[in-house]
Amino acid sequence: MSSRGEFDLIEWIKQRAGPLPGVVSTGIGDDCAVLRPLPGTEVVITTDQLMQEVDFRLEWMPGRFLGRKSLAVCLSDLAAMGARPEACLLALALPADLTGRYFEQLLEGFLEGCALWRTPLIGGDLSAADRVSVTVTAIGSVPNGKAIHRQGAQPGDGIVLIGDIGLAAAGLELLQTEKPQLAERTNSLEELEGWAQTSERFCRLRAQLLPEPLLEAGIWIREHGIASAMIDISDGLVADLRHILTASQVAAELDSRLLTESLKESVSMQAALQGGEDYALLMTVPAARLDDLLTSYPKHFAIVRRLGRIISGSTEIFLLNEGRRLKLKSEGFEHFR
Amino acid sequence: MSSRGEFDLIEWIKQRAGPLPGVVSTGIGDDCAVLRPLPGTEVVITTDQLMQEVDFRLEWMPGRFLGRKSLAVCLSDLAAMGARPEACLLALALPADLTGRYFEQLLEGFLEGCALWRTPLIGGDLSAADRVSVTVTAIGSVPNGKAIHRQGAQPGDGIVLIGDIGLAAAGLELLQTEKPQLAERTNSLEELEGWAQTSERFCRLRAQLLPEPLLEAGIWIREHGIASAMIDISDGLVADLRHILTASQVAAELDSRLLTESLKESVSMQAALQGGEDYALLMTVPAARLDDLLTSYPKHFAIVRRLGRIISGSTEIFLLNEGRRLKLKSEGFEHFR
Repeated sequence: MSSRGEFDLIEWIKQRAGPLPGVVSTGIGDDCAVLRPLPGTEVVITTDQLMQEVDFRLEWMPGRFLGRKSLAVCLSDLAAMGARPEACLLALALPADLTGRYFEQLLEGFLEGCALWRTPLIGGDLSAADRVSVTVTAIGSVPNGKAIHRQGAQPGDGIVLIGDIGLAAAGLELLQTEKPQLAERTNSLEELEGWAQTSERFCRLRAQLLPEPLLEAGIWIREHGIASAMIDISDGLVADLRHILTASQVAAELDSRLLTESLKESVSMQAALQGGEDYALLMTVPAARLDDLLTSYPKHFAIVRRLGRIISGSTEIFLLNEGRRLKLKSEGFEHFR
Repeated sequence: MSSRGEFDLIEWIKQRAGPLPGVVSTGIGDDCAVLRPLPGTEVVITTDQLMQEVDFRLEWMPGRFLGRKSLAVCLSDLAAMGARPEACLLALALPADLTGRYFEQLLEGFLEGCALWRTPLIGGDLSAADRVSVTVTAIGSVPNGKAIHRQGAQPGDGIVLIGDIGLAAAGLELLQTEKPQLAERTNSLEELEGWAQTSERFCRLRAQLLPEPLLEAGIWIREHGIASAMIDISDGLVADLRHILTASQVAAELDSRLLTESLKESVSMQAALQGGEDYALLMTVPAARLDDLLTSYPKHFAIVRRLGRIISGSTEIFLLNEGRRLKLKSEGFEHFR
């Protein structure tokens, strides 16, 4: 298919966006989308952008993976509030020579994510640009007053991780070392697995290219009233834990042994502490609820593990290592550094 | 001020974002923002991106104007649905060397718009990039079922314009011809007026650089139940009228004399028909309501004028000119052409 006009592309998307749930009054094709929230619920909203050459390189990012990842990273913020996704908007900028196959694959991946995570695409914006950028706005819902915040951690709370950390950074390292032309070679998880050759390499690449938002776990945690604070790990364990500490005005002790046990093979301690883009969930849990969590948490959800505890103090993070107490200075990923 | 880290910039924005209205439960500084819509209202949501070298050139776009325009163009979509703005999100990407003064001026202009149009900034995303892009998501509200759509125009309805058209295109032409280094020279409407020298040049530049979303007019039209369909003119009169015609499955006759009378000096018929970015409102009004509209419409709102009428047919646009009937083929602005 050759290069097409903006309105044709919008029509192409609209045809494929699927049916709208009852909460959506107006979807693609008007000046705005319209939603009617259920009574007793609040609207939870977030936006995230993935930029070519900053968040990904076109050579190693197949369009289908980019579309799906761009939605996943945005939905991960909903998961971190315990929100249920309701709808999304897609603002896409791309060079005119990519309006053919790459565009279709990107949209295919995005709409796969919409179906998988029950988040219909209800609007957006298309623009020309020199480089690809994908900006997603996700809209979710929580019962009134039930969103889980970064603020709320108390001394004595356990620090609990859902999902794996460090894998996405290990995947990025693999891509930066080998510089594979993945966009030309793979367009599915199966093809990625074939290209990766070993399951360890596949795990790392999948974590970097096709992260999963932990929506079910986030909603479960909110429904069971277990977390005093929660965040998703997009910038790295240390940086995102520090966001909880700053918002809650407390400090943290991480247990080096628990942290080491949690690491997948091939993940270094540094990648676990500083690597971004894992989209695991990090929460604090009152001590009295920890046992309840570890016994009743559904086995088929992403793995849950305790990493340490909240202490009183001023946002410091200490690493306990065989009796020694090391103050962490390192940060996670931050733009403009 | 020198280049700063992402989290410092977010804190800088948060300090200046102002107090939150009751409808916002959580603003900047968490994974998501949270809003509690008033009972009986729907959520109206839209996203728009402005890209450097596509929608503006850095040389002639002062940061303060860019910030304000990026919000204005997004709010214009709310105006076109008759919605009241409630909050907005800002996804900003910019080169690391612009995180100083240009960033501050951009945010200053954006937050001025937030205050002016009562649309608090409640969240967003910051990223590094080679070029500046500003993506805004605006959230508004309408009473249940009262949003004004593109669909709904009926044969016999009048075609009515609120605001001026063609001016923004005339302003763009001036910028493209003279290539002024405005970003270095102007940072306020007064400085722009001084630089423009004549009021005619100032009007053109202001329309291009500092458009106003016609929020009051849009809400008034919705409250008075006057429009059968409405859209904002972002892509040009012909292109946006065609969106109404396509959604409503009707055709249109524009009256050349009425159109000519509506034009400001220095605006050509071509700029009026095809020029984008005016953010005027275009609506269709049942014939029985036209007199009501023209007599009761508030005088201090943007000017309202009839341009023609809806006829039955298949999305054609005819220009009536001294008894002749000319079928328009031309389109407005569209990306990827």
